[in-house]
Amino acid sequence: MKLWQKNTAVAAEIEKFTVGRDAELDMELARFDVLGSLAHTQMLQSIGLLTAEELQVLQAELKNIYKSIEAGDFAIEPGVEDIHSQVELELTRRVGEAGKKVHSGRSRNDQVLVDLKLYFRHQLQEVVQEVQGLFEVLQAQSEKYKHVLLPGYTHLQVAMPSSFGLWFGAYAESLVDDMQLLLAAYKIADKNPLGSAAGYGSSFPLNRQLTTDLLGFESMNYNVVYAQMGRGKTERTVAVALAAVAATLARMSMDLCLYMSQNFGFVTLPDHLTTGSSIMPHKKNPDVFELLRGKCNKLQALPTDISMLLINLPSGYHREMQLLKESLFPAFQELKSCLQMMAYMAEQLLVKEEILKDEKYKYLFSVDAVNELVLQGMPFRDAYKAVGESIEAGTFEAPAEAIHTHEGSIGNLCNDKVAEQMNQLLQAFNFERVQQAYAKLTAE
Amino acid sequence: MKLWQKNTAVAAEIEKFTVGRDAELDMELARFDVLGSLAHTQMLQSIGLLTAEELQVLQAELKNIYKSIEAGDFAIEPGVEDIHSQVELELTRRVGEAGKKVHSGRSRNDQVLVDLKLYFRHQLQEVVQEVQGLFEVLQAQSEKYKHVLLPGYTHLQVAMPSSFGLWFGAYAESLVDDMQLLLAAYKIADKNPLGSAAGYGSSFPLNRQLTTDLLGFESMNYNVVYAQMGRGKTERTVAVALAAVAATLARMSMDLCLYMSQNFGFVTLPDHLTTGSSIMPHKKNPDVFELLRGKCNKLQALPTDISMLLINLPSGYHREMQLLKESLFPAFQELKSCLQMMAYMAEQLLVKEEILKDEKYKYLFSVDAVNELVLQGMPFRDAYKAVGESIEAGTFEAPAEAIHTHEGSIGNLCNDKVAEQMNQLLQAFNFERVQQAYAKLTAE
Amino acid sequence: MKLWQKNTAVAAEIEKFTVGRDAELDMELARFDVLGSLAHTQMLQSIGLLTAEELQVLQAELKNIYKSIEAGDFAIEPGVEDIHSQVELELTRRVGEAGKKVHSGRSRNDQVLVDLKLYFRHQLQEVVQEVQGLFEVLQAQSEKYKHVLLPGYTHLQVAMPSSFGLWFGAYAESLVDDMQLLLAAYKIADKNPLGSAAGYGSSFPLNRQLTTDLLGFESMNYNVVYAQMGRGKTERTVAVALAAVAATLARMSMDLCLYMSQNFGFVTLPDHLTTGSSIMPHKKNPDVFELLRGKCNKLQALPTDISMLLINLPSGYHREMQLLKESLFPAFQELKSCLQMMAYMAEQLLVKEEILKDEKYKYLFSVDAVNELVLQGMPFRDAYKAVGESIEAGTFEAPAEAIHTHEGSIGNLCNDKVAEQMNQLLQAFNFERVQQAYAKLTAE
Amino acid sequence: MKLWQKNTAVAAEIEKFTVGRDAELDMELARFDVLGSLAHTQMLQSIGLLTAEELQVLQAELKNIYKSIEAGDFAIEPGVEDIHSQVELELTRRVGEAGKKVHSGRSRNDQVLVDLKLYFRHQLQEVVQEVQGLFEVLQAQSEKYKHVLLPGYTHLQVAMPSSFGLWFGAYAESLVDDMQLLLAAYKIADKNPLGSAAGYGSSFPLNRQLTTDLLGFESMNYNVVYAQMGRGKTERTVAVALAAVAATLARMSMDLCLYMSQNFGFVTLPDHLTTGSSIMPHKKNPDVFELLRGKCNKLQALPTDISMLLINLPSGYHREMQLLKESLFPAFQELKSCLQMMAYMAEQLLVKEEILKDEKYKYLFSVDAVNELVLQGMPFRDAYKAVGESIEAGTFEAPAEAIHTHEGSIGNLCNDKVAEQMNQLLQAFNFERVQQAYAKLTAE
Repeated sequence: MKLWQKNTAVAAEIEKFTVGRDAELDMELARFDVLGSLAHTQMLQSIGLLTAEELQVLQAELKNIYKSIEAGDFAIEPGVEDIHSQVELELTRRVGEAGKKVHSGRSRNDQVLVDLKLYFRHQLQEVVQEVQGLFEVLQAQSEKYKHVLLPGYTHLQVAMPSSFGLWFGAYAESLVDDMQLLLAAYKIADKNPLGSAAGYGSSFPLNRQLTTDLLGFESMNYNVVYAQMGRGKTERTVAVALAAVAATLARMSMDLCLYMSQNFGFVTLPDHLTTGSSIMPHKKNPDVFELLRGKCNKLQALPTDISMLLINLPSGYHREMQLLKESLFPAFQELKSCLQMMAYMAEQLLVKEEILKDEKYKYLFSVDAVNELVLQGMPFRDAYKAVGESIEAGTFEAPAEAIHTHEGSIGNLCNDKVAEQMNQLLQAFNFERVQQAYAKLTAE
Repeated sequence: MKLWQKNTAVAAEIEKFTVGRDAELDMELARFDVLGSLAHTQMLQSIGLLTAEELQVLQAELKNIYKSIEAGDFAIEPGVEDIHSQVELELTRRVGEAGKKVHSGRSRNDQVLVDLKLYFRHQLQEVVQEVQGLFEVLQAQSEKYKHVLLPGYTHLQVAMPSSFGLWFGAYAESLVDDMQLLLAAYKIADKNPLGSAAGYGSSFPLNRQLTTDLLGFESMNYNVVYAQMGRGKTERTVAVALAAVAATLARMSMDLCLYMSQNFGFVTLPDHLTTGSSIMPHKKNPDVFELLRGKCNKLQALPTDISMLLINLPSGYHREMQLLKESLFPAFQELKSCLQMMAYMAEQLLVKEEILKDEKYKYLFSVDAVNELVLQGMPFRDAYKAVGESIEAGTFEAPAEAIHTHEGSIGNLCNDKVAEQMNQLLQAFNFERVQQAYAKLTAE
Repeated sequence: MKLWQKNTAVAAEIEKFTVGRDAELDMELARFDVLGSLAHTQMLQSIGLLTAEELQVLQAELKNIYKSIEAGDFAIEPGVEDIHSQVELELTRRVGEAGKKVHSGRSRNDQVLVDLKLYFRHQLQEVVQEVQGLFEVLQAQSEKYKHVLLPGYTHLQVAMPSSFGLWFGAYAESLVDDMQLLLAAYKIADKNPLGSAAGYGSSFPLNRQLTTDLLGFESMNYNVVYAQMGRGKTERTVAVALAAVAATLARMSMDLCLYMSQNFGFVTLPDHLTTGSSIMPHKKNPDVFELLRGKCNKLQALPTDISMLLINLPSGYHREMQLLKESLFPAFQELKSCLQMMAYMAEQLLVKEEILKDEKYKYLFSVDAVNELVLQGMPFRDAYKAVGESIEAGTFEAPAEAIHTHEGSIGNLCNDKVAEQMNQLLQAFNFERVQQAYAKLTAE
Repeated sequence: MKLWQKNTAVAAEIEKFTVGRDAELDMELARFDVLGSLAHTQMLQSIGLLTAEELQVLQAELKNIYKSIEAGDFAIEPGVEDIHSQVELELTRRVGEAGKKVHSGRSRNDQVLVDLKLYFRHQLQEVVQEVQGLFEVLQAQSEKYKHVLLPGYTHLQVAMPSSFGLWFGAYAESLVDDMQLLLAAYKIADKNPLGSAAGYGSSFPLNRQLTTDLLGFESMNYNVVYAQMGRGKTERTVAVALAAVAATLARMSMDLCLYMSQNFGFVTLPDHLTTGSSIMPHKKNPDVFELLRGKCNKLQALPTDISMLLINLPSGYHREMQLLKESLFPAFQELKSCLQMMAYMAEQLLVKEEILKDEKYKYLFSVDAVNELVLQGMPFRDAYKAVGESIEAGTFEAPAEAIHTHEGSIGNLCNDKVAEQMNQLLQAFNFERVQQAYAKLTAE
């Protein structure tokens, strides 16, 4: 039986198909939709399209709606298509005809565009803060365990001495570079598209600089055709930045899954953080790290998911751009929960001491032994030969410890330098500008 | 018949399998391998691992090799595995045993890492310059054709008036945002990994700050484990940046392929830039734009290609990282040639005047007509109704032109503001630092 | 504030993180979990691990649960982790200790594996039926409109005469080839993994051939290590097959979005199936086709999403395999609704007659004109020259119609041959075998 | 300086940009281009577009060219764009004007299409044969080492007893399922597109069934619009099939890289097949397996690469389809060399005996111990408790061996059943039909 022969009206099926998950996803945009309207109405009054009285009424009610959203008292009613319609409906209920004037000089297209930009800015800020939280845990663990050695591998073969100081610190530093992409994404999101209307501008004498300032944007998407082109492009860039952070977490998780295997045994977790079996007493399944790995690997597929939607679409709005929400919105929460979970788990990790006592790691220090002879004045070739012969003869004695002193080595981690780089990047976001603008915009 | 039963030695087959395309691709790294050695040897002497005399001889010969590379007189000999071996071989031929001392405190791993970082910096600079070139062409065309209108589409449906000023300008502004990702990639590439040895540092008292300065790096990858983790991660970030530029070019190409179709007919190319048919006189195949579209869409798959290689590899070097070269190296040339080709073609485009005279575009100005009445004081609803009725009655008269005045609209493109943003981004790369460092490093 | 300092217990957060969306997604598996247990218990009794009495009680209650699932009366209770636990819980409530014996010789791993295989088989059957439905609509439209011509394009340039008969028929035939991948996926799903336990088999003398037959599988995954390897691999293959169908729908949607543009105007939809604007009377936004295009393009990213989860995982179960459900389960419903929507829309399409009367298509028949002269005996070169000259002189007269007679051409669509291929493929699935097995398994 | 200001003519740059790597890649198509022409000319004569004499001359010269290709004496001359032009040129040189008649009723588009289908069929056959070769090695190793146990892992945690018999056999069985996708791709490739001309058919009364039979195709792409749509779609399906095989090889390589790590030590390779270090005597870098893993992971990105090129292209030929060659052609050689290399390496693997003697594997048999008690009649709960207590008390004694008897378990591998499935699939390709057709077509 065909869909259309069921007892449902065709129209209902088509509406379901076209509305999709908007009602659910749009709740994330509610606050930002109101902020956009607060700025837009101020601008309309400044160019004479609203009277001072109309503006006052509208601002008051928009602020009321804003407060109810903040309080969690706002919902999209059944039958209302999206957040923009719901806010309009509320506004018109409260202030009557003036509510409809809000739409002068604005189209649904640039309204959605500005909501999304504000939302992405907000989510990126939250991601940045979680990254910072994990960074601090990793740096603290790096300092705490800087004297605990573990084998370093190349080709998954035991190779050179490493340390938990290096291992934790490496992932901290990885987050610094990831921050470059978060910053790039933030800069692209931090430009005002409002005023681009349906993507071709308006014949009203809009003051786009004013809304840019009111919403705390660094700048605007000047060209109105480009403003619309930002739909999808912004999402792709944000996805790329989230994927970069996810890649760091996924790799760290893979290391930890290996290190928790009985064949490595470098770290463990307290029992209540693993699952196991009473008749397999050694078994401590690292479920959280496996799921971190999986969730973060899936996040790395997100840019492809978005690119596949966009490729070969000519310029101008297309309806499927709505589907970008489904891909990207849940990714923010997913990544934030992964960052939190990794920070918690990294703090709980129990690190095994004296790993290197195991016979299979005994040649780890052979290169250091060669270097030691060289530093004592022996030519490299002779030193290499001497150490090789002592290994073959079974008389090789490993140095008692790794004496590495250069920048970034076991004995000189430079975590402070890395923290300095992180701080400089954090400053570059200038989150205060946004905070101040919003405070002003929503002040009673 | 099995491979191994052929008259070839197994060893040769395995060598072919493992060496792959290194000999060919490594020529791209030649200059940078020598620059790295110039810096590394200076550092070795500063910590007493080379004598002043040894340094002098090595520097002289390294500079000779550098000049022969610049002159195109350098090649990897048959049977030599990669560029690093070739440079060593040359050096040892020329200066004897001292040539081998170059490897103190360095492993093949960090040597490759630093070569790649220098190479990526260089390639990104070239890409940036080509982006700048295309940007200028697009802005010039935007100014030149700012009075030529074309229809703007939403849902591929005729919607609102647009202009070639907007269309060209939009793609120029798109390149500004793409520059953010190029900058992020450059910043990640612009950190020195030299001194990380096999990924776990060295017991020699290396001075990594010195090589960082000598090679004109902004900073270093401090943590040695992270330095090695940069392999693949840097490549992925660079690929993401190239893909962003490619996406802009691909979308512009798609527009142009449509616009050259007889069903749009908005632009044409001079005959010698198209292919056609003598019995299909209207047919002007936009081969160059189709290939631009295809090449740039393929470039957008590059980050996935790289991610698939890296996902779930534990930390530490793995041999397949060598394959990253195959993916990324040719992409630079591909993107640069696409940027050049698009700049050339964009300059040659012949824009059709009076497009909007066609009957099918007659309602383009209906929104403007409504707005005009509103600006004259009529309430929006009444204005909308009036225009709707005139359309229905067949008496609708479109305004003679689009009078859009706000920032970024047809009448106020703000190309200068966009150019200012581009210039600020270009400054942020600080290419001069590198140039100065190289000049000093290679000076006789 | 850290997650862990909130007023929630850590355990709850971790449970949320690890359980994820299982409770929701697992409802899809309910029927199949019970079918698996119906077969497994019969087998256990056959090898003496259940008594005949125990079997009778268990079968009766499993059939009761099955009926309540079919009736929609079954749900996963709050606090119960997944469907398998819920079914167990119900069973134990109803039959006491015997309920726990169901787990002899089975681990959670192979229980999930067999549930998934049964579910995929079921979903693939539903997809195949929807494909068949669309296929029939497309073939009917192809026959109905076989005399309506439209221009055929190469390079998006007007090239040769085509027809709606060809255009509809092409997408029908495309579905035939897509069916090859659905069949491959079905064949891979149609092998029994039950009895592989945790991926290494069992020391109980299981009779795997018996459960294979009872569940209507064509064969089994013999090697127990391979049976576990099927997790993820089966999902990837199913995703690839869904993506193939999606690619056909997406391309057809792109054609239709173009064809509905005023610049083509080849097809329209009844007003109630488009959105538009009263002051833009020509505008008929093809929202459904845009969303079909977008949804189907996103489905094409699914195999990458799955591959990214799996790449470089060593053999053996890993917890993140649970996340495969999130990726794949919703895709079935998405694709089925797209297939239904396309079938409905394709039936509603209004095709424009006399498209080729438009001046811009007048050289469409120039190649046919040349061929006509050749068939009359004129050498090709002379014919070509003659037609070229008549075009240049403006005296070219197009043939009145396209007389194409060979297989698959405008005048000889061969839709019956294509339908025959489709039928052969449909037979190859042998859905009856499964239906018969289930009927027997659930019979009272 | 701009490209266009260099001393090169613009035309040359554009030609380079548009021709790309065709001259190089097209050599792969040479044989198949001639085979297509052999069939096409026979058909032309059958419908009166060539005389018997013309046919005789053309067939003779085409066969000469075929022989020179087979002998390796054929090349694309400098300045000739592609293989089709080169073959034409040769033909015209040898037989004069009649050579040009070959193009009646054929366009470059369907000529390329048929060449590609024949080429893919050929390459898929070669891949299938290499898969079969590896399959046999893996099954032989499975039988050879069926008594050698190794630990089985879940969550990378030591879990249950496994064996090399299972491990080798699992990858053999994996190849059987991969064959389903190779078969699907082959079936899609095995349909004749010749006669579809530029994608809209021809007004000549072509006999497409005749060329279908002559070229040994199973059937034809009937609808001419669909025949052209097969460009890209066939490539994507072939890529998906290659990626499936690659995924099996990559996973096996990952296992082997782990198993060769000192932390597992389950397998080794003879010294001449690894790289190592004289002062790190334990280090045996598994370069070949790492490169196999990397190459095969990259191959898994191929379908995305192809999809990105195709997405949202409307129906009809587009020039960038030419770029599909660059993506897919090298992949055949890459996969075949990976299959050969894996077969060789798998034969050389040295398997470690007595792995399970290691203390860390002592609880592997705890589940088997429980089952043993159950089979002796003890209720499961009691058995579980008894074994748990013996473990806790340190008195647990593992069974001497794994007695697993069911289908696909350690003691009953069912390799013969799996081989039977492989053989049935191999039969389904029916490679003989093609061989016979070609023999007839090229016979003197």
